[in-house]
Amino acid sequence: MVCNSPSFKSQQKKYTAAMGSLVKDELLYHHLISTLLQAGERSLIKLVYFSRDSSDHEDPLNDSVGVSNGVNGRLHFAKFETTKINDCLKFISANKLLLGGLQHQENPTNDRSFIKATGGGAYKFSDLFKEKLGISLEKEDEMECLVTGANFLLKAVNHEAFTYLNGQKEFVQIDHNDLYPYLLVNIGSGVSMVKVDGDGKFERVSGTSVGGGTFWGLGKLLTKCQSFDELLELSHRGNNRVVDMLVGDIYGGMDYSKIGLSSTAIASSFGRAISNNNELDDYKPEDVSRSLLRMISNNIGQISYLNALRFGLKRIFFGGFFIRGQSYTMDTISVAVHFWSKGEAKAMFLRHEGFLGALGAFMSYERHSLDDLMINQSVQIPVDASCGTDTNYNPLERDLNETESMQCRVYQA
Amino acid sequence: MVCNSPSFKSQQKKYTAAMGSLVKDELLYHHLISTLLQAGERSLIKLVYFSRDSSDHEDPLNDSVGVSNGVNGRLHFAKFETTKINDCLKFISANKLLLGGLQHQENPTNDRSFIKATGGGAYKFSDLFKEKLGISLEKEDEMECLVTGANFLLKAVNHEAFTYLNGQKEFVQIDHNDLYPYLLVNIGSGVSMVKVDGDGKFERVSGTSVGGGTFWGLGKLLTKCQSFDELLELSHRGNNRVVDMLVGDIYGGMDYSKIGLSSTAIASSFGRAISNNNELDDYKPEDVSRSLLRMISNNIGQISYLNALRFGLKRIFFGGFFIRGQSYTMDTISVAVHFWSKGEAKAMFLRHEGFLGALGAFMSYERHSLDDLMINQSVQIPVDASCGTDTNYNPLERDLNETESMQCRVYQA
Repeated sequence: MVCNSPSFKSQQKKYTAAMGSLVKDELLYHHLISTLLQAGERSLIKLVYFSRDSSDHEDPLNDSVGVSNGVNGRLHFAKFETTKINDCLKFISANKLLLGGLQHQENPTNDRSFIKATGGGAYKFSDLFKEKLGISLEKEDEMECLVTGANFLLKAVNHEAFTYLNGQKEFVQIDHNDLYPYLLVNIGSGVSMVKVDGDGKFERVSGTSVGGGTFWGLGKLLTKCQSFDELLELSHRGNNRVVDMLVGDIYGGMDYSKIGLSSTAIASSFGRAISNNNELDDYKPEDVSRSLLRMISNNIGQISYLNALRFGLKRIFFGGFFIRGQSYTMDTISVAVHFWSKGEAKAMFLRHEGFLGALGAFMSYERHSLDDLMINQSVQIPVDASCGTDTNYNPLERDLNETESMQCRVYQA
Repeated sequence: MVCNSPSFKSQQKKYTAAMGSLVKDELLYHHLISTLLQAGERSLIKLVYFSRDSSDHEDPLNDSVGVSNGVNGRLHFAKFETTKINDCLKFISANKLLLGGLQHQENPTNDRSFIKATGGGAYKFSDLFKEKLGISLEKEDEMECLVTGANFLLKAVNHEAFTYLNGQKEFVQIDHNDLYPYLLVNIGSGVSMVKVDGDGKFERVSGTSVGGGTFWGLGKLLTKCQSFDELLELSHRGNNRVVDMLVGDIYGGMDYSKIGLSSTAIASSFGRAISNNNELDDYKPEDVSRSLLRMISNNIGQISYLNALRFGLKRIFFGGFFIRGQSYTMDTISVAVHFWSKGEAKAMFLRHEGFLGALGAFMSYERHSLDDLMINQSVQIPVDASCGTDTNYNPLERDLNETESMQCRVYQA
């Protein structure tokens, strides 16, 4: 691989050094370059790490500029409930996912082990990681990680983005040269709306406190569900018309056609609860859950569209734990964007949306190293990440799990 | 009063005829020209009617063009819970608020009694009014009534509009020639956002199903409150931090200053309910109520601002039953508009916000008659409506009640 950019060369050198430190340890040879922690959203900890293919026998210490073979391997994704933080610690320890002593080859006085972390968990679990594993969590800016992760996926992974409307999923091929600007909507506990103008160029332009935490928090209080998944599952079987006041309920079953509202449009979320003497126990949890899901999805779709409109952004990508490939959630958000934009805008989703922050933090070990590789070698895509073993992987049918990974090729100088 | 507009003359003639029919009945002489019904929002029925001053001895049948004295009287506002619909019917009947046989002087074949009505109640109570009072409800378009009512108030009533921020109320004097365009946000069960460009010129540009019905519906399910007022009262004593996840909760008590979020900003409404084992009964109803109020007020303020921005509207007026002069509600909406607009936009409120639709329907008896009078006689304001007996009336301290009225002078040709 030939690249004459000085900054690029320097970064590659560091990256090579990082790999070099690992291959000294045979136990780690096949396993890992790097790991990352993101937590705080729906109490999940996400890990991203790289393992080298055992069949790849190239010398990873070869640092002669011009060699473009790189290292074959896989990017792995893992997640843990924060309540099972000890399992996560054991997993990191057992699999030796510690990036010990990499950067301080350049700075020997900074002798410590660390892993990159972002999100609320980077603060919350800082002491625990130090105590149990003796490692520090190096905090990376969450927004920056999300954007870096999204940019990487959108540029490196085939069939990463898709639309979902009326039960129809459609993959969208995006020209790398026409990717920016776009709106990234990350629906975690709260919602952040980020205008992305390029690599490392972004601004949080809006957001809302009505997000996944509202769905799960209110849902827990209203239905006594014990998990987010249970609440989501309930919503699939529910009927929101029992709880919501529809336009037709107000106008005697008729549309309010003059202003373009059909009789079945929701006039007031939970508005029906006003007009009868039912108490909470009189409602089915599934109806309440569905009403809640529609209310929140609609609202996020609307605010996102208004912000996209405000900044002239033609694409809106939705990610975060609230989505999680759930068809009904995606459908509601898509319908909201479709409704408010009068069909002019489309909601898009990312297959690996749950790992945006983790991916971004992973890449921050040598900031922009993977990304620069791609940008400087746009013909020879150096990180060829596609879902290796299962090219027909469908995130709509099953969730990412611990064994999920994608084929990668990481180039080194 | 001199006016050479043909359409104006014609409307004035009708208006004179309408008055003429009433003065034939001595019992009605002091009391009423017109009445109106609006219902459907928080189960309230609003009435607006006009009573002539007993001291006003001018001949109301004088229809010579050029006489500009008009009729002195008062516009009255009354409201009833829809559950007490029979009280409303009795009130209309006892006070003879029926506009019988007015318009059909022009069309003798259409021999029926009717009152103008708008909102959901115009449909819901149609049969009941026919059965109990023998009168029809003439349905007027709700959005049109709201706009007509708002335009009338903003042009005719001194100290109608005010801002409310950090507990400080400030009346805003608006130049009649610089009133349009503005955004009218009506927060009923649901929320309508209407861009108003002039008299009868408006478009419903947006809205949200998260409105007063959501506050009251969800609030009822969560707190077992028995009335909207009780729920609102509760919210004043509550602390939303018990229920909401703040930015500081996520980032270890720190601000997320990079993106301009303080540690006390709400990151996720109801997000704290996720992270502990509390059930609904473990929370104080006042904390839940306050969190709900902030969530909904914030959300409406945000969507309203985004729409004002979209259409380049410099003023946003908030009305509807959700506001009702409640200081905390107004403060939250104002803060939201201030926050999202970075101080560039201000939320405004209307003193008679609860009666917009009713006022608009009142005026629809002879559409634009009062309004045209004003527009064509901008120097000699013909409908001089101010809060007659109590010029220091403060809607922030007490609610409008049945005895509320404003001094009026209705001109006739």
